[in-house]
Amino acid sequence: MREYEILSRINRPEDLKALSYPELSLLSDEVRDFLITHVSETGGHLASNLGTVELTLALHRVFDSPKDSIVWDVGHQSYTHKIVTGRKDRFFSLRKAGGLSGFPRPSESVHDAFLVGHSSTSISAAYAISCANRLSGNDAYAIAVIGDGAFTGGMAYEAMNNAGRSRNRLIIVLNHNDMSITKNVGAFARYLSTIRAKPGYLKLKDHTEWLLDHLPFLGKRIKRALRSSKSMLKYLLYHATFFEELGFAYFGPVDGHNQKALEQVLLRAKDLNAPAVIQIETVKGKGYPFAEKDPLNYHGVSPFNVETGNGFSSSSLTFSDVFGGALLELGRKDARICAITAAMSAGTGLNLFAASFEDRFFDVGIAEEHAVTFACGLAAKGYLPVFAVYSTFLQRAYDQILHDAACGGLHILLAIDRAGIVGEDGETHQGVYDVSFLTSIPNMTIFSPSTEEEMRLCLKEGLYHQKGVVAVRYPKGRIFRMTDGKARVDYDLQNGESDCLVISYGRLFHFVYSAIHGLDRRPSLLKLVQIWPIDAKLLSLIARYPKVIVFEEAVQSGSISEHLLYALNQAGYRGVYRSVTLPDTFVEQGDVSYLLQKYHLDVDSIQKQLEDLYEEKTGYPC
Amino acid sequence: MREYEILSRINRPEDLKALSYPELSLLSDEVRDFLITHVSETGGHLASNLGTVELTLALHRVFDSPKDSIVWDVGHQSYTHKIVTGRKDRFFSLRKAGGLSGFPRPSESVHDAFLVGHSSTSISAAYAISCANRLSGNDAYAIAVIGDGAFTGGMAYEAMNNAGRSRNRLIIVLNHNDMSITKNVGAFARYLSTIRAKPGYLKLKDHTEWLLDHLPFLGKRIKRALRSSKSMLKYLLYHATFFEELGFAYFGPVDGHNQKALEQVLLRAKDLNAPAVIQIETVKGKGYPFAEKDPLNYHGVSPFNVETGNGFSSSSLTFSDVFGGALLELGRKDARICAITAAMSAGTGLNLFAASFEDRFFDVGIAEEHAVTFACGLAAKGYLPVFAVYSTFLQRAYDQILHDAACGGLHILLAIDRAGIVGEDGETHQGVYDVSFLTSIPNMTIFSPSTEEEMRLCLKEGLYHQKGVVAVRYPKGRIFRMTDGKARVDYDLQNGESDCLVISYGRLFHFVYSAIHGLDRRPSLLKLVQIWPIDAKLLSLIARYPKVIVFEEAVQSGSISEHLLYALNQAGYRGVYRSVTLPDTFVEQGDVSYLLQKYHLDVDSIQKQLEDLYEEKTGYPC
Repeated sequence: MREYEILSRINRPEDLKALSYPELSLLSDEVRDFLITHVSETGGHLASNLGTVELTLALHRVFDSPKDSIVWDVGHQSYTHKIVTGRKDRFFSLRKAGGLSGFPRPSESVHDAFLVGHSSTSISAAYAISCANRLSGNDAYAIAVIGDGAFTGGMAYEAMNNAGRSRNRLIIVLNHNDMSITKNVGAFARYLSTIRAKPGYLKLKDHTEWLLDHLPFLGKRIKRALRSSKSMLKYLLYHATFFEELGFAYFGPVDGHNQKALEQVLLRAKDLNAPAVIQIETVKGKGYPFAEKDPLNYHGVSPFNVETGNGFSSSSLTFSDVFGGALLELGRKDARICAITAAMSAGTGLNLFAASFEDRFFDVGIAEEHAVTFACGLAAKGYLPVFAVYSTFLQRAYDQILHDAACGGLHILLAIDRAGIVGEDGETHQGVYDVSFLTSIPNMTIFSPSTEEEMRLCLKEGLYHQKGVVAVRYPKGRIFRMTDGKARVDYDLQNGESDCLVISYGRLFHFVYSAIHGLDRRPSLLKLVQIWPIDAKLLSLIARYPKVIVFEEAVQSGSISEHLLYALNQAGYRGVYRSVTLPDTFVEQGDVSYLLQKYHLDVDSIQKQLEDLYEEKTGYPC
Repeated sequence: MREYEILSRINRPEDLKALSYPELSLLSDEVRDFLITHVSETGGHLASNLGTVELTLALHRVFDSPKDSIVWDVGHQSYTHKIVTGRKDRFFSLRKAGGLSGFPRPSESVHDAFLVGHSSTSISAAYAISCANRLSGNDAYAIAVIGDGAFTGGMAYEAMNNAGRSRNRLIIVLNHNDMSITKNVGAFARYLSTIRAKPGYLKLKDHTEWLLDHLPFLGKRIKRALRSSKSMLKYLLYHATFFEELGFAYFGPVDGHNQKALEQVLLRAKDLNAPAVIQIETVKGKGYPFAEKDPLNYHGVSPFNVETGNGFSSSSLTFSDVFGGALLELGRKDARICAITAAMSAGTGLNLFAASFEDRFFDVGIAEEHAVTFACGLAAKGYLPVFAVYSTFLQRAYDQILHDAACGGLHILLAIDRAGIVGEDGETHQGVYDVSFLTSIPNMTIFSPSTEEEMRLCLKEGLYHQKGVVAVRYPKGRIFRMTDGKARVDYDLQNGESDCLVISYGRLFHFVYSAIHGLDRRPSLLKLVQIWPIDAKLLSLIARYPKVIVFEEAVQSGSISEHLLYALNQAGYRGVYRSVTLPDTFVEQGDVSYLLQKYHLDVDSIQKQLEDLYEEKTGYPC
């Protein structure tokens, strides 16, 4: 590790306050070097953190954390915040089991004001904190830092609508970098860009504002008249009235890499004692040429080589790759197929489809709720919409799936990526709830392919042979290929003659398969491809076995394991039924294989549990 | 039934097109009379429908349904639409089992373009329909009709952000009546009112717009210059740029009870061939003095007396009443308690609290997502937030409960009203999923009080003796009072000595209680007050019985019945386990007692199932 002249002296926010601007400039360089060095080793979010170095320093110099609360939206841009709030010595442990989280965590530091991970929550939280401050007579500030991508989420607007009518000490820093995870293409983004195109705006606005704020001798009427002409001028030149119409004072745009300008505008907003929006302009990946040129690929990275920037793409195919390729194929043959993403076209593998069928590809912004209802509208007119989305983010659209799609009887396909344990992103991002929340919705059909062949079959089956809402769910990471046998879309029974049936699905099936093949006494093995609903034929097949055990990578409550037991019991099953699921808990960050082991779902644990099951007596008449 | 001169001739939208304006005026009167007469008999939404008579006639005269798609947001204002699209003869069956739905239902008519019920979905759906139209070369229009209340929902904004950049034939009619279910107090509502306050706006705008649209001889540059000066003038006078900044042409405000003006503005928007927002001003309850004066109480009504307007309030206390009173009491003693509603202060019984503790009461608009995260922010600063919300609307906040509240480890209380079957509002509003979706969230605690005494105990217990997210759920309708015994917050076992245990909770417990007391051979009866989680002590109590049966008013998948069976099985239980829940389906509209009977949860069905259970052999060793 390099020795850093300034950074080595920074152990808490107060240490920043005495620094001169030349020292701060050096510190920014050191922080960037620190970030690149560490993230190249640990993996993590890079481009967004390189873009918010100066902002973080400015916030901690102008405000007093933890008295003042800084809420980072999503939180993947909070690394510098972690570094200057006493956590730089633990940075090597970032995103590792037991280590620093890649997101703000109140349990980790008093400076992390709110747990974040999902998008667009910061204004709600910061506004509530500002209300709490007001109620308790605390003169502290609440600051939300939100990107233009997160600002496309409806929650942000709901909160703005609320907060704008208050007189609270609330400051919203809108970080405009024109790049959410994929390109942000909404009307609002266009609007922000229009403002940015007029660099003289702030200066002009500044002078009038400052004058109005600092001339106490002027009467109210004169001030109002001046403000009005200022508004007119502003509108004529820049149309920057969106936020003001919602009740916020607006400052910006400010160069987000100009330390002094940032601090000045924050101080001005601080003086206001009322809700303010500050629009800052930053460059994602700032200071690291590879990341500046290609912020998309440097958004979230695996460990890489600092010198060349290479090494972050996996060599073999992932589930997402195969999904993307398969949908492209289907889209070629059928012009009714439309693809929808909530700002995740690259992550979900939809970029292939997007490039080929621009007309039928819809990036709706970070707006999962709208995405599902939008899919429903397309379906209502006879199209075949496919919404590709991460399991954890689909949680946002529970009501829309239930109400607009399922109750509406509309045929849409949800391609659920990152289903199961996701690893380093940790407890806010685990895809272990979708089985539970989707099976609570009537008329759902859920597939869980575990091989390339099954993925293709499931998509076809889901689009053409099923009705209503169909989900095809699959994990992060490398997909498997079938080595023998024929792919099926319902289930696959191997070694059918035995008194013990082992059931699994998805990624976990491969572990179960390996476990069984290491045993002397091999049980029957049932792979579910369609995991929901459980039909009568499948049920009677399962009920033939005196012993049944299910291995499942999902929380217990609402799992297939629970539903299957209930169905077996109703059918009069009297055998021994066991299942191993994830506990009803928040699964922490860490390597996927480490976490599977911890929760007894690795090959060794599976073997041991099978051996235990052999010992159990059945309730079957002997 | 009265004979209506014009209305009797209207059987489909085309019949409207030949009418003169005097005839239309008479028709509006007749429709209002029809609405008041019918709704006084059937119950239903009144004020909102009286407000949209002229708009509905105008839409069906200017557009061609079903080729053009009209999407009603929420849909409680669609009665006139139903009347003029061939359903007036079935109107007597409104909201009854097997009858007309109180909301648009595509299964009911080709003129109902999209299933609605929950708020803020119409723009997403209409925009998708406009995309589908464009893709298939169909020159049809998609029209969303949305109130200013529904416009506070984030989905509406997500969709606006998307749609504004298109060139689709999409028209959004923003119905500004300044009254969502309770008063709509956001910054956006204030903004709309500002526009309304300037009645000259449209006229001024009209002239310039018309000129620009109809003078083909003008060059592009001149038009642009004229538009620019028009924009300036408009901004100076009215600041009406919000929608235009999002990419929509803006028309309005228009008097929503002026038939001719409405049609003119719709025609103008139609000519545009690009996304437009039309702001109309209507009076809720228009034409019925009782409803005009008190639109809140005439929003959704039970049958009432037309002459006096009386008869729609129940004499005895509801669950909501008792909740509201209890929270008021608690709020008096503890200044940390805050109450939050998503535009439902009257329905949830929060109006008492609101009147006494204005500072600690927050109506966030129709914004359930924001509401939960807002509660989290208050909790993070040591307050005790209570979010009172209908079960069906809480579906919107699944992700926020899981991610911000539960994963964040924050202590908030959800007061879930309308849990269970709600009756006449039908399949989009049933509160039968919350047990499933809440139990899929780690660390949840759920109470289901069935008496006044238990309600008070559960609130206290939830606020002061539990951690994390606590839900207290209760149904619509009259609450029960304990006749003997002492209220408990965990569970209550009656007639403990028997070989059969019957378990139930909430409203249904009272039916089970009645059923058992009509039997010769009485089983033991366990009432759950805390229904989740199921602790070890309770489990071992239950496991003592060779026969267990659960009656539960919730969908099966993810029910307490399923979780309990799984836990019993894990604990080695080998007895007979039965349970009766709602099936995994969408429960249709109808009287609550009718629906309970249909799903075998009425007193007679319960008795019969208990008698059947007595006949079953147990797996216990004899």
